[in-house]
Amino acid sequence: MIVLGVDPGSHATGYAFLEDGRTPSTPMGAASAAASKTPAKGNPDRIRVLEYGVIRCPAKDALPLRLEKIHRDLSALIDVYHPGQMALESIFFAKFPRSALVLGHARGAIMVAAQSRGVTIVEYAPRLVKQATVGSGSASKERVASLIQSHLGLKEPPTPADAADALAIAFCHLIQAKRTQV
Amino acid sequence: MIVLGVDPGSHATGYAFLEDGRTPSTPMGAASAAASKTPAKGNPDRIRVLEYGVIRCPAKDALPLRLEKIHRDLSALIDVYHPGQMALESIFFAKFPRSALVLGHARGAIMVAAQSRGVTIVEYAPRLVKQATVGSGSASKERVASLIQSHLGLKEPPTPADAADALAIAFCHLIQAKRTQV
Repeated sequence: MIVLGVDPGSHATGYAFLEDGRTPSTPMGAASAAASKTPAKGNPDRIRVLEYGVIRCPAKDALPLRLEKIHRDLSALIDVYHPGQMALESIFFAKFPRSALVLGHARGAIMVAAQSRGVTIVEYAPRLVKQATVGSGSASKERVASLIQSHLGLKEPPTPADAADALAIAFCHLIQAKRTQV
Repeated sequence: MIVLGVDPGSHATGYAFLEDGRTPSTPMGAASAAASKTPAKGNPDRIRVLEYGVIRCPAKDALPLRLEKIHRDLSALIDVYHPGQMALESIFFAKFPRSALVLGHARGAIMVAAQSRGVTIVEYAPRLVKQATVGSGSASKERVASLIQSHLGLKEPPTPADAADALAIAFCHLIQAKRTQV
C-alpha cells in the first residue's frame, strides 16, 4: 500500500509518499517535477519512505498560476507512485477567514489532482496526526520531526517543515490503516 | 472575444459564455456536459449569449468528488468555447470562515481548469458587477436578472440564480473590457 501525505499551501505544498513494507511494490522511473529527497534506508515499522519534498510556487505568481503548478506537479508525482490514498489534515478555521479562503483554493487544486486519478482522500484532525507520531496532541513541530525521523529511519530530521508535516500525515494514515485492519 | 463568467459553488456552479459581437467567431460542436440553455437571439449591445447553465453536484457526494466534477465539466465547456478570459467575483469574507473555506475549494478547482487551458482570470468586486449591469451596487438579484435579460436580449429572466450571476459577471467583464479599449 502506497500512501501520499500532503500539507497544502498556496506558496509551498509539502508531500510525502510512504509504502507499507508488507506490500513491497516499487514504482518505475521515479522522476519528479519538484525538488525532493529520496532516502533508501529501511525502518523498524517496515514503512518505506519513497519520496518527500515541497512543491514551491514563486511568490510573484498570481494565485491561479500557483494553483495550476500545484495541480500539475502533484498530478505528475501521483502518476509516478500511484498511491491508493491521499491523507490531509482537516481544518476548521475559527479565525483568519482570508487565510482559510486561500488555503481552500490550494486544497481544491490538490483534491482535484487526487480525485481525478482515483486516489481516495482521507482527512485527519491535526491533533490525531501528532498523537499518531508522538503520542501527544500538543507536541512541537521539532518533536514531531524528530520522532518521524526515528519512526521512518531517516538519517536526519526531515526538512523543510512542510515536507515534515506531509511525512507525519502520511505516517498517521498508515498507522490508522494498520489499526483498522486488525 | 469570448468571455466565461463563473459563479462558483461546491454544490452548484453557474457559468455563462458571452461573445462580443465585434468578433463573430462561433465554436463548433457545442456539446456540454452540464444542463444548459443556448439562446440564439441577438441584443442591442451586440453581445451574444453562447451558452449558460449550472454544473450541479449531488449533495450526497463528498467534497473531492464534487470538485472533480466541477473541474471536469468546466474543462469540457472551455474546450468547446475557448474563452480568452474567465471572470469571477472577488470575495473577502469577514464572517463564516467555514463557508469561505469550502467556497475556496470550488474556486481552486475552477481556477485550475481555466489556468491550465491558458484562460486569463480576472476578478471583480460584487458591487462592481451590480453597477455594471444595473447602475447600482445594491440592487436585488431579481433586478439584476431582469436587466441582464434586457441587456442580452433573452426571452425571459435567466434562471437559476447561479446562472444569472454568471451571466452578470461575464457581462460586467465585457463592459469593463470595452471601456478600457477606448
